[in-house]
Amino acid sequence: MAKELVMGIDVGGQSTKLGVVNEEGEIIAQTVISSLQEELIDYITELTKAIKTLIADTAKEGKVKGIGIGAPNGNYYNGTVEYAPNLKWSYDGHGNPTIVQLASLVKSFTNLPVTVTNDANAAAMGEMAYGVARGMKNFIMITLGTGVGSGIVINGEIVYGHDGFAGELGHTIAIRDGRQCNCGLKGCLETYCSAMGVRRTAQKILSQNPDKPSLLREVDFETISSKDVFDAASKGDEIAVEIFKTTGQILGRSLADFVKFSAPEAIVLFGGLAKAKKFFHDDMVAAMEENQLQIWKGRIKILYSSLKDSDAAILGASALAW
Amino acid sequence: MAKELVMGIDVGGQSTKLGVVNEEGEIIAQTVISSLQEELIDYITELTKAIKTLIADTAKEGKVKGIGIGAPNGNYYNGTVEYAPNLKWSYDGHGNPTIVQLASLVKSFTNLPVTVTNDANAAAMGEMAYGVARGMKNFIMITLGTGVGSGIVINGEIVYGHDGFAGELGHTIAIRDGRQCNCGLKGCLETYCSAMGVRRTAQKILSQNPDKPSLLREVDFETISSKDVFDAASKGDEIAVEIFKTTGQILGRSLADFVKFSAPEAIVLFGGLAKAKKFFHDDMVAAMEENQLQIWKGRIKILYSSLKDSDAAILGASALAW
Repeated sequence: MAKELVMGIDVGGQSTKLGVVNEEGEIIAQTVISSLQEELIDYITELTKAIKTLIADTAKEGKVKGIGIGAPNGNYYNGTVEYAPNLKWSYDGHGNPTIVQLASLVKSFTNLPVTVTNDANAAAMGEMAYGVARGMKNFIMITLGTGVGSGIVINGEIVYGHDGFAGELGHTIAIRDGRQCNCGLKGCLETYCSAMGVRRTAQKILSQNPDKPSLLREVDFETISSKDVFDAASKGDEIAVEIFKTTGQILGRSLADFVKFSAPEAIVLFGGLAKAKKFFHDDMVAAMEENQLQIWKGRIKILYSSLKDSDAAILGASALAW
Repeated sequence: MAKELVMGIDVGGQSTKLGVVNEEGEIIAQTVISSLQEELIDYITELTKAIKTLIADTAKEGKVKGIGIGAPNGNYYNGTVEYAPNLKWSYDGHGNPTIVQLASLVKSFTNLPVTVTNDANAAAMGEMAYGVARGMKNFIMITLGTGVGSGIVINGEIVYGHDGFAGELGHTIAIRDGRQCNCGLKGCLETYCSAMGVRRTAQKILSQNPDKPSLLREVDFETISSKDVFDAASKGDEIAVEIFKTTGQILGRSLADFVKFSAPEAIVLFGGLAKAKKFFHDDMVAAMEENQLQIWKGRIKILYSSLKDSDAAILGASALAW
């Protein structure tokens, strides 16, 4: 009998990664396509071509029985991607974001069952099935990438809420009337504790300390990246170190409030910015403990994803398809 | 065959209410005892006596098969009441709050199965079984009483979290570095949007506007109650109206963030302060909408409990016992 396989697809703002996963949770084949198409039909054409190629390539290993997709603003209930600001093909041609029937479209062209969830939920499923959250029933996954996403697990299940959109912790207000966010609100956690947030904090601290030397002054001010800040901090640059300290403090305060909601066993941090943990971890934990209720002080584990970024998302999305 | 009955017990800071509930959800007998005993043994003695009397009184109606208790800081997993600041008998005699094995004690003296949960969770269960949240699978209950409590329902179940303490939304930070809370933190929602919070807001606004006339100046400044503010607002007192407007704004901003966590169908408001809804509702909703993500704007129902305060808690606690 042919082995059963599933496909996991991670739709990112820049690229879409596809992987075929076996029952042992190994990615036995993978490929990547661009996510930058302007027209939906072009994106779907390329995507379904890649799916079919990958299925053909793994046919001797087993039969792909379903597809799980993690996508920004992916909705588990409807199989849609709704109002995703970073995906051009999800706009209507007049600059208005629309509702893309992603599951239904991919199913139409592949004749396979397709399930969609948002990218942070997919990452949480990946950690629960194969990563640091293995065996955990209650944890909160925070993805620190270009933005800040979240996947909340309660009693071993992803929280989808009434409408499928639960877990937008990146848009809880970290600082009232703070920085303008793409979502329209002000002071969202995402405007401070994402790659973009680190850039803004860097620009602010550099501007506020014009006389203080920093390696970051050698980088183009407008495009400072969190990688630039990481490299400078690694060389002991004081301003870079302060940028991460500030980031950690703001994140820690928000994490304390998240705990008050679902009393998780752990918070799992994931994504590009999590790689700078040695520069923000201590300040984050100190701020979290300072803002924590007595019953939880010192009791909530902070874990960092052990999976490769792309693997967690592919594995998590694939878990939807089993 | 004798009908099956259950008992629901609502442990409050001042009094403990007990009720026997039938399968139709009717409270067929009830009684109340004080919660102000200083010694645990005295409280348990009075409580078990009241339980036995109530069981005897309803013996001809049916057989009480179990007891559900809603109590501040009640823990569903352990059957305990842990570190409850407002219950004197939960202290150790040296001013230190302890862990009271409430379920185990009541079970020992009644030989009935006993389940404990926190009071806000009990209220949420009451609303779900018999109140405005009937049939709802995802909602958040906010109890606006002396403090602010919360019960979160996801997929039709109360969220207890890893340790049984989930749902402390009254202690999420509404205003960073704001008012000192009894819990040790600063700026908790509870310090603004509870009966105590309304008093503090009243004192602040009265102090800040020494020349502005107000009916509240006729009340003792130190002990202004939310009822005083309600009565003044009902007579058109501008300062009283402003107090509720401020309360509503702060509550609405926090509610917007709660929605980002679990995407509920509705938020249900309950408790003494909720009775002043006509004075804070509009400002609360405006603040919630202003701080809401596009996907939820105008979509989250705000409901007010339709059950009598004591009934909701007794009915909810009793639901634990079925």
